[in-house]
Amino acid sequence: MNAAIRAVVRQADALGHETWGIRHGYQGLLDKDWAPMPTRACANILQRGGTVLHTARCPEFLLPNRRAEAAENLRAEGIQGLVVIGGDGSFRAAEALQREHGVPCAGIPGTIDNDLPGTERTLGFDTALNTAVEAIDRIRDTASSHGRLFLVEVMGRSSGMLAVHTALACGAEAVLYPESPDDSYETLVARLYANWLRGKRSSIVVVAEGDGLGSAVAVGDRLRRDHGLDLRVVVLGHIQRGGSPSALDRIWGSRWGAEAVRRLDAGESGFYLGEVAGALALLPLAQVLDPHPSPPGDLSELVGILSR
Amino acid sequence: MNAAIRAVVRQADALGHETWGIRHGYQGLLDKDWAPMPTRACANILQRGGTVLHTARCPEFLLPNRRAEAAENLRAEGIQGLVVIGGDGSFRAAEALQREHGVPCAGIPGTIDNDLPGTERTLGFDTALNTAVEAIDRIRDTASSHGRLFLVEVMGRSSGMLAVHTALACGAEAVLYPESPDDSYETLVARLYANWLRGKRSSIVVVAEGDGLGSAVAVGDRLRRDHGLDLRVVVLGHIQRGGSPSALDRIWGSRWGAEAVRRLDAGESGFYLGEVAGALALLPLAQVLDPHPSPPGDLSELVGILSR
Amino acid sequence: MNAAIRAVVRQADALGHETWGIRHGYQGLLDKDWAPMPTRACANILQRGGTVLHTARCPEFLLPNRRAEAAENLRAEGIQGLVVIGGDGSFRAAEALQREHGVPCAGIPGTIDNDLPGTERTLGFDTALNTAVEAIDRIRDTASSHGRLFLVEVMGRSSGMLAVHTALACGAEAVLYPESPDDSYETLVARLYANWLRGKRSSIVVVAEGDGLGSAVAVGDRLRRDHGLDLRVVVLGHIQRGGSPSALDRIWGSRWGAEAVRRLDAGESGFYLGEVAGALALLPLAQVLDPHPSPPGDLSELVGILSR
Amino acid sequence: MNAAIRAVVRQADALGHETWGIRHGYQGLLDKDWAPMPTRACANILQRGGTVLHTARCPEFLLPNRRAEAAENLRAEGIQGLVVIGGDGSFRAAEALQREHGVPCAGIPGTIDNDLPGTERTLGFDTALNTAVEAIDRIRDTASSHGRLFLVEVMGRSSGMLAVHTALACGAEAVLYPESPDDSYETLVARLYANWLRGKRSSIVVVAEGDGLGSAVAVGDRLRRDHGLDLRVVVLGHIQRGGSPSALDRIWGSRWGAEAVRRLDAGESGFYLGEVAGALALLPLAQVLDPHPSPPGDLSELVGILSR
Repeated sequence: MNAAIRAVVRQADALGHETWGIRHGYQGLLDKDWAPMPTRACANILQRGGTVLHTARCPEFLLPNRRAEAAENLRAEGIQGLVVIGGDGSFRAAEALQREHGVPCAGIPGTIDNDLPGTERTLGFDTALNTAVEAIDRIRDTASSHGRLFLVEVMGRSSGMLAVHTALACGAEAVLYPESPDDSYETLVARLYANWLRGKRSSIVVVAEGDGLGSAVAVGDRLRRDHGLDLRVVVLGHIQRGGSPSALDRIWGSRWGAEAVRRLDAGESGFYLGEVAGALALLPLAQVLDPHPSPPGDLSELVGILSR
Repeated sequence: MNAAIRAVVRQADALGHETWGIRHGYQGLLDKDWAPMPTRACANILQRGGTVLHTARCPEFLLPNRRAEAAENLRAEGIQGLVVIGGDGSFRAAEALQREHGVPCAGIPGTIDNDLPGTERTLGFDTALNTAVEAIDRIRDTASSHGRLFLVEVMGRSSGMLAVHTALACGAEAVLYPESPDDSYETLVARLYANWLRGKRSSIVVVAEGDGLGSAVAVGDRLRRDHGLDLRVVVLGHIQRGGSPSALDRIWGSRWGAEAVRRLDAGESGFYLGEVAGALALLPLAQVLDPHPSPPGDLSELVGILSR
Repeated sequence: MNAAIRAVVRQADALGHETWGIRHGYQGLLDKDWAPMPTRACANILQRGGTVLHTARCPEFLLPNRRAEAAENLRAEGIQGLVVIGGDGSFRAAEALQREHGVPCAGIPGTIDNDLPGTERTLGFDTALNTAVEAIDRIRDTASSHGRLFLVEVMGRSSGMLAVHTALACGAEAVLYPESPDDSYETLVARLYANWLRGKRSSIVVVAEGDGLGSAVAVGDRLRRDHGLDLRVVVLGHIQRGGSPSALDRIWGSRWGAEAVRRLDAGESGFYLGEVAGALALLPLAQVLDPHPSPPGDLSELVGILSR
Repeated sequence: MNAAIRAVVRQADALGHETWGIRHGYQGLLDKDWAPMPTRACANILQRGGTVLHTARCPEFLLPNRRAEAAENLRAEGIQGLVVIGGDGSFRAAEALQREHGVPCAGIPGTIDNDLPGTERTLGFDTALNTAVEAIDRIRDTASSHGRLFLVEVMGRSSGMLAVHTALACGAEAVLYPESPDDSYETLVARLYANWLRGKRSSIVVVAEGDGLGSAVAVGDRLRRDHGLDLRVVVLGHIQRGGSPSALDRIWGSRWGAEAVRRLDAGESGFYLGEVAGALALLPLAQVLDPHPSPPGDLSELVGILSR
């Protein structure tokens, strides 16, 4: 996210605007936990994980009167536009803030799950994907040396995006994810047996956190119980967050951050940025209410074909 | 490239075809340096850099009679289609082989320069980009600690693609590349002085190998001579090649490898694969003769805005 | 381990001996699952994690008659010495094999736990340490951004070596490990409160797998129950195994592999190699029965001082 | 170095002392470019490359009257002890400052060359070693795929320490370094031919920056001229500096930083810290005038044996 913050600050400076950084998300907006952010404050943050502005959940922001306070805080300070970096929750709040109180808002997609409607990419996804793939490359060394079955859980509460891309990139033998068809457990068992018969002694199965069968631990227990399989479960968890961002995430963070400011400067608002058909695109904030995208079916099918 | 090789072999196996691996590129086609490649031979190659089939230059292949021999070798062995992974030289040869001798050919873009006509992506580009960015992150530590100017040369003989994307992703102060306007040296000097006046003591300038001003060494000499600047030159060189491929390169290598085989199996040929508007696409082999794409101008402009 | 395998094979070749690789550890010795290993078979394995010879548990080898079979297999094939890479279980078996049947054995310490008696280092420890530290650096990004408490479990069934070194290297706020004093839970709680009062909002506690308080999950449950703390648990697990070995692990693997062969060639046996006072040293195989070393107390104390 | 800075500040705080950070090395001591450094200023610096205090050359400090000024500055501010992190130049200056003006000094070895007398380790060496090895792993991918000879220059003006350890860890075919015998060029040529005859098509030769034969570029030119070899030269250069420090460097930086403060607090001074026989040790500052250590001969010999 720091790439986007840096781009917002410096593009604004180039257009003659001052930027204030709001710490701890919407909570900071309520608490006036903010300060001017000069361009120098963005030196050497591009390569750092996390966010220099910190973040926090703010359930209060769901209350209309709290949003009214936030709008009043912004007005009192003379802040003319708000750039929100976050996922669908953050965007819904921004949409309400603009609709109810006329605060000009721009959204930059920042979630490792890549599950926002309308955009093919969100900040952090490419980094999290590479981190998961590197971790599984290490696990593969052990799986191969020991001839073992591993279930590896990756993030993605309600989205299989990260799981399917990770599985394809690390050469997993199978992938389980929320949007996959109901018979995925039987399919998994059949594939593991087929691999075994083919002489493949080690297998890695990627499981999305929010898979319908339950977590990797649950799937592992079921496989042990039903088929007596000797297996190991690894939960990647928070390792996938953080870390120095990948080149792509830095490039898109920079492009979106600069574009958000240019558009606000030009009087546009009520949008979020995205990648559509490979190009930078504007989407109306209200589109965040659309259903979230599913991972392409041909990719998950490819996982099976390529691990034979 | 190993991701594409693995995908070709395993998709072919799934369709009931046998795959032969040709070592050392077209030279191996002339020398019959080939062998059957079972699916097991592709175990654990997805995460490795380089190519298990090796590669070599083969100037002889420019001669029509040598191409005729190659076609005859393929026919004699009963090989029904050829998947070529490489850059524009390799694709021109494939185009000639198909046009002259009817060998069904499919191309998979494999060059870290990302300079093939028609496609937004080539295999190895994302990996090389991340490698260059990581290297420059390290150099940034020294540049900041010592308050120094660094010129860093990245690959890309006639293309600034890698240079511009690297510069944006590593927060470089400037970028020089072949397709940039003639006044780039004066622009560079002006920007370095402006940064100095703004209190910025360390700067990193990314220089494309094939920049019109000459290599990073030449630009460095000129800056030293004209302005007495104390600077360091780093040539990233072959460090950008090799290394475990990024997730994106693995995913596209897998997708293209599988698609190439499916299309050949369906009787199509004379194409190469690419990414167009974010999606997998087929391009006619003859399109490789088109002019190579230039890096987007807005990205190189952004480098300047964001390093203020 | 591949560094040691490569060194054994190539040093043996330099001394005029042939090397056979035994797959799947002692099980392979019983099954004659072995083959000659030429120096070319060791090309490009130095940088790979895991082991090209695979590994397996072999409980049968605890039976004297099975060891007799193994010795007979070696004799029948004319194998004159055995290099065993592994931990204390593997060394005990080697010790018995030599004592009972006169098979000349040499041991190379290969366990990521660094818990073998007599040696300051085992292969894999430095790699696992760096892997754990990199993973926790990522978690730190999230801990800082969100102001959260994380419990991170690292490997080390009965040894705190990995936990204490990891904690010091990643700047953890506290470390729990098997050999630490009984009051460690109270100490932990006191330290977390002290940090909180000092304004430190994020904390990372490293927990050794075999800590007396139970796993990180158990400690986390207790902290939640007793103090209502909002925390996250991450189990690094098998991510710490595998991965391209660190420079130090490659260097010591190379040195030990070569030395083992030279000593066997000179007629010595019944030893394992180690690092003592920073230098390469020979230790009698029987020393593996000594108690395992504890992590230096001053290091774990330093964790507390430096996280203030 | 940040690990050592953090340890100095926090250990001093634990002992009730205040720490001031001096920016830009001895130049900052002359310019009073210093400020109090609270423990909070050391948050999240452990994992960063470079140094938060910046660094600079200061040739003036060789003049006795400038050193007198520096001592006066320290006295005037009430600073009671100086911790110097650096190489032999920095330590010589500290030695003079203490001898001439009674300023209590403590040295922490900080140079990636690992060429300080008396100590087996300096901060940055393990990190630079791993960085060089990772870079050469990438080059190896290309060398293998293309069957090529690479000369790779690593840092080390007058010391082969980094070159020899790098060569062993990356499985280089040969290494050239300043302290090696005069006939190293002939030995190199002989070895390259022997490898070629043995069927080894790709070779990597590590060359120390300060090798007697000249730089890697010079050696490459000579090999091309004398033997018509087709080869590539890569100069790793400043890539080896910077980057997130390895676990070992963080641990030793932490240990040395804390120990330096404890000793100064106990009234000791005029020493530098080191690793002797694997343990933390104190050395008299004057020992820095001793000749620098040579890389162990058995390691460079091993490079040859293991690359057969």
